[in-house]
Amino acid sequence: MDDFRNLSTADRRPDRPGGRGFVIAEGTVVVRRLLESAYPVRALLGVQRRIEELTEELAPAEVPAYVTPAETMADVVGFHLNRGVLAVADRAPQPDARELVARARKLAVLEGVGDHENLGSIFRNAAALGIDGVLIGPGCADPLYRRSVRVSMGNVLRVPFARLEPWPDGLGLLRDHGFRVAALTPRPGSVDLRELRAPALERVAVLVGSEGPGLTEEALAAADLAVRIPMAEGVDSLNVATAAAVAFYELGGAR
Amino acid sequence: MDDFRNLSTADRRPDRPGGRGFVIAEGTVVVRRLLESAYPVRALLGVQRRIEELTEELAPAEVPAYVTPAETMADVVGFHLNRGVLAVADRAPQPDARELVARARKLAVLEGVGDHENLGSIFRNAAALGIDGVLIGPGCADPLYRRSVRVSMGNVLRVPFARLEPWPDGLGLLRDHGFRVAALTPRPGSVDLRELRAPALERVAVLVGSEGPGLTEEALAAADLAVRIPMAEGVDSLNVATAAAVAFYELGGAR
Repeated sequence: MDDFRNLSTADRRPDRPGGRGFVIAEGTVVVRRLLESAYPVRALLGVQRRIEELTEELAPAEVPAYVTPAETMADVVGFHLNRGVLAVADRAPQPDARELVARARKLAVLEGVGDHENLGSIFRNAAALGIDGVLIGPGCADPLYRRSVRVSMGNVLRVPFARLEPWPDGLGLLRDHGFRVAALTPRPGSVDLRELRAPALERVAVLVGSEGPGLTEEALAAADLAVRIPMAEGVDSLNVATAAAVAFYELGGAR
Repeated sequence: MDDFRNLSTADRRPDRPGGRGFVIAEGTVVVRRLLESAYPVRALLGVQRRIEELTEELAPAEVPAYVTPAETMADVVGFHLNRGVLAVADRAPQPDARELVARARKLAVLEGVGDHENLGSIFRNAAALGIDGVLIGPGCADPLYRRSVRVSMGNVLRVPFARLEPWPDGLGLLRDHGFRVAALTPRPGSVDLRELRAPALERVAVLVGSEGPGLTEEALAAADLAVRIPMAEGVDSLNVATAAAVAFYELGGAR
């Protein structure tokens, strides 16, 4: 049960490798995704009804599942959870960037996406819109942080991701594999996102920066082209995950 | 000062017309939008620095602006605000649906969007992507609720909206004005959203339903066509505001 204690601080564990905690899944949908993933699940904790919903997925996994009343669950984790089930897994080695790039057609590359919710939403949108993987540049939050996992609806557990280093020279790896790298930016001189439209087999990566400052000069210079979402005058930009969704849609990976 | 008291419950005011409260703007950006809008602003409350940032907009408005320390502000509103400035306005009559439709080219029509944050995000996306107005069908939240105003970044105050009644027969009004009504739905038989792409002058309305159950049969039957965003297999749908953004982008109102 110790794995589930004080969950609100369980993301940061100085006693564990890299200071990072377990992978924590909340709710039936996300727990199911964790059980389907490559992460070694340690245990489940939940109310009877929720654990029963997962019987089929639990059978082959041979993972201990602790059934408790909701009150005991709240006592253990430190706050009231309304999703009724939790799972905890160990972290696992991420794929190498080279390996990820080699088998992908459509990629997202992130720079400075430091907000866990935006990061989680980007993974949710990537999964829905046919993005094969996410490359994580500098200044990004941890995709496996509890809040990212939740907001992504567990899609951080199934869209493969890898750190891209060094930055931005690592983008050369994409070019070596025949990718066009398109930077998403509202800057003058960028072309309408529709120009990005590509056949299903063409390799394209969209480079997305943080909501406020946007992409760095170095990242923009390293891209093959700059694309923008046409926006009404005098309006603030879209949320970064929403802008990414529009670009992912145009990439057409789900078609 | 009474207008600002107990702000967390200020949205629902049984003592005011329709049981609805004031329009409340939080933060410099949104307060500025409120001052630019047609809503009759009653007063501002803020810390010195924030009120000073608004000097230019306040001069012609002749609105009382109360400068207080942050602690006093927190005492009055009932919780700590980190945006440092608030404004309160009276509600104002909304445009008639007929009037709104007559002067629009691209419209959003909402059914059952009961979540205030999703509703606010839809307005933010509509403003950025060149949607001229929003028609509100049954089961939708109040766009002027405090949380919607905040999440929309004040765009509920500038994208015009109107109730559409009766439902779904009121959609006939759109057809009378030469609009094509496209229902956004993942159902089989719907066509790729790209089919919706239309010249700038063509009148198109996109009909969006709630995230869970989606559009009702009646609404689907009343639309001219059904369009879908191509999605990867086995993935849950996008968030409703994100899906709407992709459709708004395809409508091309901001081009």
